[in-house]
Amino acid sequence: MTHHRIHNFNAGPAALPAEILQDVQQELLDFKGSGMSILEVSHRSRWFEDVLDDAIVRIKRLLQLGDQYEVLFLQGGASMQFCLVPMNLALEGKPVAYINTGSWSTKAIKEAENLGKDVRVIASSQDREFTYIPMDFQVPSDSSYLHITSNNTIRGTQWQTFPQEGEVPLVSDMSSDIFSRVFDPAPFGLIYAGAQKNAGPAGVTLVVVRRDMLERTRTNLPTMFKYTTYAEKKSMFNTPPCFAIYVVWKVVRWIEDKIGGMEKMQALNEKKARLIYDYLDSQDFYRGTASPESRSAMNVTFRLQKPDLEPVFISEALAQDLGGLKGHRSVGGCRASIYNAVSVASVETLIQFMKEFARKNG
Amino acid sequence: MTHHRIHNFNAGPAALPAEILQDVQQELLDFKGSGMSILEVSHRSRWFEDVLDDAIVRIKRLLQLGDQYEVLFLQGGASMQFCLVPMNLALEGKPVAYINTGSWSTKAIKEAENLGKDVRVIASSQDREFTYIPMDFQVPSDSSYLHITSNNTIRGTQWQTFPQEGEVPLVSDMSSDIFSRVFDPAPFGLIYAGAQKNAGPAGVTLVVVRRDMLERTRTNLPTMFKYTTYAEKKSMFNTPPCFAIYVVWKVVRWIEDKIGGMEKMQALNEKKARLIYDYLDSQDFYRGTASPESRSAMNVTFRLQKPDLEPVFISEALAQDLGGLKGHRSVGGCRASIYNAVSVASVETLIQFMKEFARKNG
Repeated sequence: MTHHRIHNFNAGPAALPAEILQDVQQELLDFKGSGMSILEVSHRSRWFEDVLDDAIVRIKRLLQLGDQYEVLFLQGGASMQFCLVPMNLALEGKPVAYINTGSWSTKAIKEAENLGKDVRVIASSQDREFTYIPMDFQVPSDSSYLHITSNNTIRGTQWQTFPQEGEVPLVSDMSSDIFSRVFDPAPFGLIYAGAQKNAGPAGVTLVVVRRDMLERTRTNLPTMFKYTTYAEKKSMFNTPPCFAIYVVWKVVRWIEDKIGGMEKMQALNEKKARLIYDYLDSQDFYRGTASPESRSAMNVTFRLQKPDLEPVFISEALAQDLGGLKGHRSVGGCRASIYNAVSVASVETLIQFMKEFARKNG
Repeated sequence: MTHHRIHNFNAGPAALPAEILQDVQQELLDFKGSGMSILEVSHRSRWFEDVLDDAIVRIKRLLQLGDQYEVLFLQGGASMQFCLVPMNLALEGKPVAYINTGSWSTKAIKEAENLGKDVRVIASSQDREFTYIPMDFQVPSDSSYLHITSNNTIRGTQWQTFPQEGEVPLVSDMSSDIFSRVFDPAPFGLIYAGAQKNAGPAGVTLVVVRRDMLERTRTNLPTMFKYTTYAEKKSMFNTPPCFAIYVVWKVVRWIEDKIGGMEKMQALNEKKARLIYDYLDSQDFYRGTASPESRSAMNVTFRLQKPDLEPVFISEALAQDLGGLKGHRSVGGCRASIYNAVSVASVETLIQFMKEFARKNG
């Protein structure tokens, strides 16, 4: 059966590899001979536990995580982590440090403040509308942690290298660039990521936590708020979001077995980003909005020199099966999200369309 | 394409109607001509918002909810509600009342106590291993709420009628019997249900809340812990678990459009329960474990007079495509969960197998 499929540049929920969707489709009524759908099997059955175990092994391999890291599956998205991180990791009498690179960082900061933590915002790019990543900051050496947002979907910026703060563990919201590139996990105490951009569908949040961080959790926190609950019960204190975890498993398997691993995934992402940024820099009908040294390889934000044409651009693009190009409602403009599942061919098709649109409207 | 499908008596995640799975399968690569999977569309697109809106309308109709009720979609399962309910609904200086009918009630009580609330367990069936629903209790008239577990999956008991406590709002965990029968919502201040039994897949929790309850929420609670956040943003403060909500929508549509509504659903459930309990009561090879006046129409728990034969019974059943008959690991024995999606034919097949097994091993 053939299906109508568009080039999907959505910011999240976002594109998934078509071969994964076909795979899910094919086995939806009978998962591995169980006679049940993956939606119907018990989370305590070997069918699901095999999925969970293999997902954890592959995630640890892709992220080069040693035995000191636990891979957990939570719910509630990154927004839930904005409060769970300070609840679990803030040390009594010690500040928590944040760098503010946009809307999502701002929300994370607000939740930590609301909990009454001693929040220090040690750097911010708000002075230039969050169009860059601040590189100049001092982290108080007694900080419980330093929190950053590794990729900022709205303004299209991304940390190119991560801070190294010695004893202060790094905590990052990696919702929009996890599994997009190789990095050294050593400075990280905790990484969290809502799955719906690079890792799978909405409905599951990946949490990678270093074991020493777990010792910080107060035992009298509600059970479902404690990272230790998920670590001790392999994310199955209660029924996990089985289907979303199953799709994440398919995604990490696809990165390893089809793409060929994290280095190759990164090379593809760099190629796509280079194609589109090189085009943006080569003309003046469109202009990229992020500061060049902070540009995101995941979310390419741009404006048209004639802003009136932006709605026309977006709707004509959609008519040619190029979807999801509208900028975030808080900032307007245009945005092409080019996560792992967006192919080089889709990016090339987009650039062709952009050229044609510029020619007709220039 | 035909698939191998078993009779699925799982306690949760549990059976879904095959026609819903086929429907999901058919449109998995292209949802309503969007050129995207339901897994890939933006939660702020009309494709998803139409699903969400129609799900809410249908849920309100099925549960006969007036305008004073909000239908919310959260994450984290019933276990997350065990702490969110007291955090949001406990009134300063007033007790919270609980009736303990088993393992899930016990966990709910533990979370309320852990939060330092003035918890009054006003009745319990622990004296007879939770095999019945207590009918004799006094609710302190100043209670913030009275919490019950409407159906108890492990011991197979169910509230046949709900308490009416005047000014004290009823709160119920209905994870395992929501949408199974008609009831008057008037006494309820809040109802919650993990979807993975009668309402859909794991990964979404339905919360029905009466608007006056929302006034109790402290404004300084973390954003994601407040029911008001979900009520004000139509469950889209952040990305909701779109796919799980989509399947819930298919389920409520199926109850209304295929089954013919809540009365007919209830009649089918009563028929299935009567078939199997009548058989249990007609012989002595098997015996039901729940007290007859408290028997669940959702989870039928039973033992064999010769307990050594139970593992044989379970494995021979599975060999004949009757799955999920093992009792909960905490109590052993056998259990047939006969939720909405389990057909009368499946129950009849099970009874035939039970008769045959008894004949051969009697």
